[in-house]
Amino acid sequence: MPDFQTIALDVMGGDRGPDAVIPAAAMALEQKPDLRFLLVGDEGRIKPLLARHGKLAERCQIIHTADAVASHEKPSVALRTGRASSMRLAINAVEEGRADSVVSSGNTGALMAMAKFVLKSLPGIHRPAIASVFPTMRGETMMLDLGANVVCDADNLVQFAILGAVFAKAVRGIERPTVGLLNVGTEDMKGSDAVREAAEILRGIEFPGDFRGFIEGNDIPLGTVDVVVTDGFTGNVALKLAEGMGTLTGHFIRDAFYSSPLAKIGGILAYPAMKRLKNRMDPRYYNGGMFLGLGGICVKSHGSSDAYGFSRAILVAAGLVERGYNTVVAQEIERLSALGPIRSEAVEEPASL
Amino acid sequence: MPDFQTIALDVMGGDRGPDAVIPAAAMALEQKPDLRFLLVGDEGRIKPLLARHGKLAERCQIIHTADAVASHEKPSVALRTGRASSMRLAINAVEEGRADSVVSSGNTGALMAMAKFVLKSLPGIHRPAIASVFPTMRGETMMLDLGANVVCDADNLVQFAILGAVFAKAVRGIERPTVGLLNVGTEDMKGSDAVREAAEILRGIEFPGDFRGFIEGNDIPLGTVDVVVTDGFTGNVALKLAEGMGTLTGHFIRDAFYSSPLAKIGGILAYPAMKRLKNRMDPRYYNGGMFLGLGGICVKSHGSSDAYGFSRAILVAAGLVERGYNTVVAQEIERLSALGPIRSEAVEEPASL
Repeated sequence: MPDFQTIALDVMGGDRGPDAVIPAAAMALEQKPDLRFLLVGDEGRIKPLLARHGKLAERCQIIHTADAVASHEKPSVALRTGRASSMRLAINAVEEGRADSVVSSGNTGALMAMAKFVLKSLPGIHRPAIASVFPTMRGETMMLDLGANVVCDADNLVQFAILGAVFAKAVRGIERPTVGLLNVGTEDMKGSDAVREAAEILRGIEFPGDFRGFIEGNDIPLGTVDVVVTDGFTGNVALKLAEGMGTLTGHFIRDAFYSSPLAKIGGILAYPAMKRLKNRMDPRYYNGGMFLGLGGICVKSHGSSDAYGFSRAILVAAGLVERGYNTVVAQEIERLSALGPIRSEAVEEPASL
Repeated sequence: MPDFQTIALDVMGGDRGPDAVIPAAAMALEQKPDLRFLLVGDEGRIKPLLARHGKLAERCQIIHTADAVASHEKPSVALRTGRASSMRLAINAVEEGRADSVVSSGNTGALMAMAKFVLKSLPGIHRPAIASVFPTMRGETMMLDLGANVVCDADNLVQFAILGAVFAKAVRGIERPTVGLLNVGTEDMKGSDAVREAAEILRGIEFPGDFRGFIEGNDIPLGTVDVVVTDGFTGNVALKLAEGMGTLTGHFIRDAFYSSPLAKIGGILAYPAMKRLKNRMDPRYYNGGMFLGLGGICVKSHGSSDAYGFSRAILVAAGLVERGYNTVVAQEIERLSALGPIRSEAVEEPASL
């Protein structure tokens, strides 16, 4: 293995395009000097930005294309018409072995559709899932699926549990990760057929972690388990709800500090602490939706990411590559292939993140 | 109509039983002197508590029973064996016309099963739903279903939208309430078949409010709409997640104030403001899960409610009765009966709240 890894960046994706991606690459390089980049996008816009980051310029190569996937393009349309897009060429670079991973803040649905088409699913995985890590009362927790599959059967949920447990183990280094299946109650009789059946399967297999059975919505922020498994509908709603709750709380806290002169002084004194609190819950720090279960590493950055946020997504991709995530998952799936017959299903439109 | 209303209270329900329920009734009576109560439970435990609340004692009647539904009893078992329970007798009082509504902090599943069995659904309603109101960036929003129906079809969601719109209109006095259907994106193509079909139906009928189409998880705390409609699985997870986020934030804020001597002083100065902030998000204030779509008014208080929390649930029930909620819903359903064929479905175990 070479002593560096190469990340293909879709420079044209997201609200800010190159203005976020180029400085993000420079930031990530400061954290991890062993990174190399393929910058895929409009050379005319990339070069002037690169001129400001000498060190980065030495570590990257440009793949020029003027074409980009629009942010609201239907995935099926993007797949058909976006063959020369920066997103597609960046994904192709992984397939061709020119890059170890790809990071894009473009259209989620298009990215998932293209990634599935080009990189394929790992053998035995029916539906790749979107996963992300976020802060809880007891450290960090990872949740999946966050929107790639709005309807999931028991087999899908079981595979998500395996994808998640391997992440916690291989990438985060947790010896025996705890995994919970999101439900409306913890008793066996609770929930839909899919979650009840999935729990039964997970209890019956040699699970690569500690399957804790059902958990409830409050267990997510409490950090009860290392990995929260759910369908893409519930996961997507939960992810966005948590984001919205953060905004609401920030708004209420500001209101409270402005509610009296004394509170205002208190606010000034507590400002550095509140700032740290804000950083602790900074969604940019937790940016980077991992597409797990694909034949290559693909990370989705938030569409509105700034350079710092995008740099975090780059580091997420770098971590997955460094820890050989896909190799370990493939081994686990093979080991567990005695799971029984699992239905293969049609590709669906992923939810917007 | 008499100039007072009577509320049947399941005195033995919840973690604290009479110790919460009796003082709660006294508190509610202070707010609304036109209330009368049927206290259903163990007379031996009720009477000494009542002795401390002279005014309340004049306004209530005791229905004695020593039997109570256990907090983890299976709904089907409670239904079969709990015929003399305080919960059941309190519900019966509504059916018999002796009370206008019932409030219980007992076992949610048992309460829903008994309420459905005794009070039946309103004509045309297939699945009663659990609804609750909570604080958002722009005032209050109501969400349903919160766990009565883990799997919902389009017709169920449409009926929830009607139940919610009528609540916002009749009880909260919002002229043209905005209603949103929770989904993973706002585009028409997004989501499960059920939500897409429900949106189509809602756009086609003379909806008693302003149907805004799809909303996403972050729209819940942002208060984008007056009524959030979703299936009981997603709603239950969202409700509990929001509760857990509140706990997490409180924890992080405390941490921040303890992080430095200056922050500590700031915390002391800002204490009254922070206290107000806490009150503003106090889940006890928003206690009271309404079982909508039944032939009688039934409100579920949180199992761990204290007296204040339970008094809030009593006032929720009083509001529904006062505004003639069930009459208006019945009229709306009748008016909209041209909706087309709707499948009737089996009763399911409700989720624990």
